[in-house]
Amino acid sequence: MKKKGKLLVISGPSGAGKSTVVFKAIEGRDDICFSTSATTRSPRPGEVDGREYFFVSFERFLEMVANDELLEHAEYVANCYGTPRAYVEQRLAEGMNVVLDIEVQGARQVRRQMPEAVLIFIAPPSLEELEKRLRGRGTDTESAIEGRLIRARQEYQEADFYDYLIVNDDLEKAANQLNAIIEAEHCRFADWSDFLKAN
Amino acid sequence: MKKKGKLLVISGPSGAGKSTVVFKAIEGRDDICFSTSATTRSPRPGEVDGREYFFVSFERFLEMVANDELLEHAEYVANCYGTPRAYVEQRLAEGMNVVLDIEVQGARQVRRQMPEAVLIFIAPPSLEELEKRLRGRGTDTESAIEGRLIRARQEYQEADFYDYLIVNDDLEKAANQLNAIIEAEHCRFADWSDFLKAN
Repeated sequence: MKKKGKLLVISGPSGAGKSTVVFKAIEGRDDICFSTSATTRSPRPGEVDGREYFFVSFERFLEMVANDELLEHAEYVANCYGTPRAYVEQRLAEGMNVVLDIEVQGARQVRRQMPEAVLIFIAPPSLEELEKRLRGRGTDTESAIEGRLIRARQEYQEADFYDYLIVNDDLEKAANQLNAIIEAEHCRFADWSDFLKAN
Repeated sequence: MKKKGKLLVISGPSGAGKSTVVFKAIEGRDDICFSTSATTRSPRPGEVDGREYFFVSFERFLEMVANDELLEHAEYVANCYGTPRAYVEQRLAEGMNVVLDIEVQGARQVRRQMPEAVLIFIAPPSLEELEKRLRGRGTDTESAIEGRLIRARQEYQEADFYDYLIVNDDLEKAANQLNAIIEAEHCRFADWSDFLKAN
């Protein structure tokens, strides 16, 4: 019996180290993949439809929204991005755990559409540390950094419907926690009805 | 900040290997202990009050029940057994994860009294395998074995309020799953309100 995968929604402030934690956790695992989004923006040179994104027209995107074909969607710099439900469902049915790296508002939509999704918030050890990391990257202007800090604080308030919080003060530990969450979620009693019926 | 421990309620049919899985999981960990029950039965030679059990009179036990001092209680061979709430609360406050090995009915009482308890059911890979294990032990009569199998099937039906199911088909794997569940439960978003308030 192929066990269904889990949809893992990962959120957290820019600079919390979300991608680093996820990449560390999935090292050597072949049962985790990232979701592929649909977008209305044009492909950049080298991007392949269905690999980086599913590239769709604005009309098709509106249709997907109207038909409930997206688990969540958002607008960013005049382009639309969304997570195709059918694609995610297919990967889950194949036994893959699917990672979705989205903001809190998108996670809220996913929770409504797929209540069994696992919502994980990754936070830096403190806002002071986040500020240090953002400055250390040297990519943001002073006002952008201030904006990100205000946004982070706001996200903490909004994220109360998440299932888990991982405080990324140690990469190894944070990655282990993410893997433990995946392992534990696969032990959910509700997922074992077939086993219990057969016994 | 000392993080509060988790109350881990472990149930499962006799022969599922509950104790073996728990002992394997806590090897080398000093943050897990078993709970100590109160009982009305007399101490056996060598048993120390507060170590094997809290030995109490029948009158005192009734009082504990009346005063809601027990997280759960049951009667077994004309003696009463129960889990003192104050004792468990104290160990949890010390940061210990407390293991409670009890039957489904007791777990139901714990869930009502302490909704944040983590309920874990440990099952054998199949009822055929359970039967083989029970026969292999050579300690039960034929009718006792049949009784245990009927009881196991019944427990599966009643256990639908548990959080997790661990299928013990491989000791190492089962112990890892138990540890993953403990790790994941310590990442519960709701446990981090102090962290979020401070940030």
